[in-house]
Amino acid sequence: MKPSEYALHDPIAAIATALVPSALGIVRTSGAGSIELAAAAFSRSEALLKAEGNTLVHGWILAEDGSRIDEVMAAVYRAPRSFTGEDSVEFTGHGGPAAVLEIYKRLLQAGFRGAERGEFTFRSFVHGKCDLTRAEAVREIIEARTGGARGRAAGRLSGSLEREIEEARKIILSALAAIEVEIEYPEDEETTAGAWDPALTTAALEKLKILESTWSSERLYREGARVVIAGKTNAGKSSLFNALLKEERAIVSDIHGTTRDWLESGSDFAGIPVNLYDTAGIRHTADAVEAEGVQRSLNLASEADVLIYLVDSTAGMTAEDRALLNEGIQGDATGSKAPVVIAWNKADKPGTLAPPEPGSLGAETLVQISAKTGTGISDLVRAAAGILMEKAGGATRTNSAALGSERQKAAVHSAVLALDHAFRAAEQGFPMDAIAQDLEDALGALGEITGETTPADILDEVFSGFCVGK
Amino acid sequence: MKPSEYALHDPIAAIATALVPSALGIVRTSGAGSIELAAAAFSRSEALLKAEGNTLVHGWILAEDGSRIDEVMAAVYRAPRSFTGEDSVEFTGHGGPAAVLEIYKRLLQAGFRGAERGEFTFRSFVHGKCDLTRAEAVREIIEARTGGARGRAAGRLSGSLEREIEEARKIILSALAAIEVEIEYPEDEETTAGAWDPALTTAALEKLKILESTWSSERLYREGARVVIAGKTNAGKSSLFNALLKEERAIVSDIHGTTRDWLESGSDFAGIPVNLYDTAGIRHTADAVEAEGVQRSLNLASEADVLIYLVDSTAGMTAEDRALLNEGIQGDATGSKAPVVIAWNKADKPGTLAPPEPGSLGAETLVQISAKTGTGISDLVRAAAGILMEKAGGATRTNSAALGSERQKAAVHSAVLALDHAFRAAEQGFPMDAIAQDLEDALGALGEITGETTPADILDEVFSGFCVGK
Repeated sequence: MKPSEYALHDPIAAIATALVPSALGIVRTSGAGSIELAAAAFSRSEALLKAEGNTLVHGWILAEDGSRIDEVMAAVYRAPRSFTGEDSVEFTGHGGPAAVLEIYKRLLQAGFRGAERGEFTFRSFVHGKCDLTRAEAVREIIEARTGGARGRAAGRLSGSLEREIEEARKIILSALAAIEVEIEYPEDEETTAGAWDPALTTAALEKLKILESTWSSERLYREGARVVIAGKTNAGKSSLFNALLKEERAIVSDIHGTTRDWLESGSDFAGIPVNLYDTAGIRHTADAVEAEGVQRSLNLASEADVLIYLVDSTAGMTAEDRALLNEGIQGDATGSKAPVVIAWNKADKPGTLAPPEPGSLGAETLVQISAKTGTGISDLVRAAAGILMEKAGGATRTNSAALGSERQKAAVHSAVLALDHAFRAAEQGFPMDAIAQDLEDALGALGEITGETTPADILDEVFSGFCVGK
Repeated sequence: MKPSEYALHDPIAAIATALVPSALGIVRTSGAGSIELAAAAFSRSEALLKAEGNTLVHGWILAEDGSRIDEVMAAVYRAPRSFTGEDSVEFTGHGGPAAVLEIYKRLLQAGFRGAERGEFTFRSFVHGKCDLTRAEAVREIIEARTGGARGRAAGRLSGSLEREIEEARKIILSALAAIEVEIEYPEDEETTAGAWDPALTTAALEKLKILESTWSSERLYREGARVVIAGKTNAGKSSLFNALLKEERAIVSDIHGTTRDWLESGSDFAGIPVNLYDTAGIRHTADAVEAEGVQRSLNLASEADVLIYLVDSTAGMTAEDRALLNEGIQGDATGSKAPVVIAWNKADKPGTLAPPEPGSLGAETLVQISAKTGTGISDLVRAAAGILMEKAGGATRTNSAALGSERQKAAVHSAVLALDHAFRAAEQGFPMDAIAQDLEDALGALGEITGETTPADILDEVFSGFCVGK
């Protein structure tokens, strides 16, 4: 079912924690009547029914035959003081998957409907508890792979982006109000652009342009930076790939009792989530299939946020390496180049040659490593992270407003275009109503970001990406 | 660190939900001063400090620099009304692993110590909030793989076993009290066993013998039944193995948004958790390595709770099959035999032969299946489940007291032996103080079950099996 078609008045229930053995597990409910429905499956019905909002009641979830399913704490919320703005009960039980499942099934039996993806957050949005940027940040914070990504999501969750958009909207709105007065009660017959002072709207355009520029760095946190390992066959790419993953995993391994599976497909360079790519050995080949693999590697390399180019230091920098660095893997159709770090591998072996000057090869830096023994790997990570941090505009932006999705970026871009158009129209002396239309377009684009004027299909796209239980 | 050495007065913190992206995540704390420590990392410190027990406070976890980590609900508990009996705060945040980790790290920074395995439950036990049988049931309910196992754990969690043991203890205690009066104030000089009426203690012995007998079925729920698939090479064992796993997984696949990883190593036959074993092809062989594999298969088969013997119905029952069923895989050194279900496989193929009478082969039943197409698999599961249910004493025992661990079984057995000894001593006219000693031994054994007189090393064993956060 599409989020825009969710029935808004059913009491809903969902399992809100992962269904794996853990210390605690949560089944949450929401909707008018949910406290009454939940009470029917609860050992201390009266206590639950009489509970004030924001209180906890101890008891058992009971099966229909009265047998005990699990001992729980029931967190009771009363509308509008809840996440969704509705009455709500959250049951926290011993986190056994069988118990959590059975609590959930019992609640369905009691009359709750199983919640759809993002339905709790959707209700929160519909009931005005959060705007669309904060709703999106809820998903962001769940999916954040690093502390840096989490921090940026937390900023948006606390409303930094919403406020910035609102400020820009207010400026445009007051300009629009002035223009509309002008149109309705013209001082002279000819209501031209001359009556509007664009300077009053400049602040909004400035804000939006800055916001738009944040996406190139925010994207790194949201989607992960693309770090590509390239180099000739046998330079040691797979060893380095594994060493980098291991380096990262070691960071969290000292934290007691944590599962680390969620990190294993990715990596973390100084708080920036990283997607590591290992490329097929790059070399000239007569084999068509292999040649295709090489071409894919070349494409991947040119789109990298950082390219780690691996050289076997016992063989040294060959003509082929130089050719690849200068032309082959660098520069795609648009001529853009990925920043390169040269990893001077096999530093542990006898017969290692002296490294060249990285600048002479168009590379940012060179790090001597041994992928096999792990020597220099942390230096390599630091070097790559430094380049990424620079791209991301340093570590300081956490508290200022920034964009969190491609969707927001596109809408801000539309607003910027509309305002630009208004300025040009004013310069060219267009009639006031043409300018008013431009300003309204800008407002519409901004309204789409916060959810005020967001079309159903975009809401569907936003909320269907959520997990069930959120 | 051993549980018996846990420092009982530190404020502790732990991540209590699985560290995978999910809708909600919990970091819990406990210990004197934990509300004050938590307030230092909370946006609404005053509200938290003033919060009454069993209430919920909305706010943000703040980093030391004041930046926002995650939006949370803080559940506040005040001693002794909490799981541990201590002051406690549980933070429920958006379930992003990065956010949950950072909340946890922030709490460590604020002065909490990372909790050890089972430390919350250990404190609950030490503070008299639950006896040892209920503490063990907490772990049981987390680890329960099926509804049946969950139900039995819930019974013990609600104190069914504790009450039963307490009743037996009371009976023995009053007998002991009577004897001690007799010893101190003898009516005649010779205080023989004649002064004690064993009939008064019979009820305790009866209770304990029934309890002891429950373990053979409870074990199936607690540890899982051993279902072994055997048969000649190419009979289709691997296909059946996969079909059985799939059958089981289908049961939960209709439940919205649940991860099913935790089930994939095991299976579920009518509520009884099942460990499936696929045996190496059983056949005579000259190859020593393979012969060892065959021997292992034979051993495995003889220890099965149910043995599914697979026959290729297009080849029919061969002399080798008969030999294996009658001698080879049946009957270990003690001569015990596993109950057998014959699976007449490849029923979908032309040229299937008519099945034999299962009784003539010493088997309980025969089911025609096709492991490839799935035909008959659910019948096969029902047949095996029927045998297991019979072994487990039917589905009705959930509400009566039963044992939940090998440890409890051993202690009940000691108590039964001690009581038996007392009865025999009385019959033989032993002095009263010998009988008193037996009764005290029985009491000691029962006290070990509930935790009253449990030695440190047994406590260590019980609690070190817990997960962190519980």
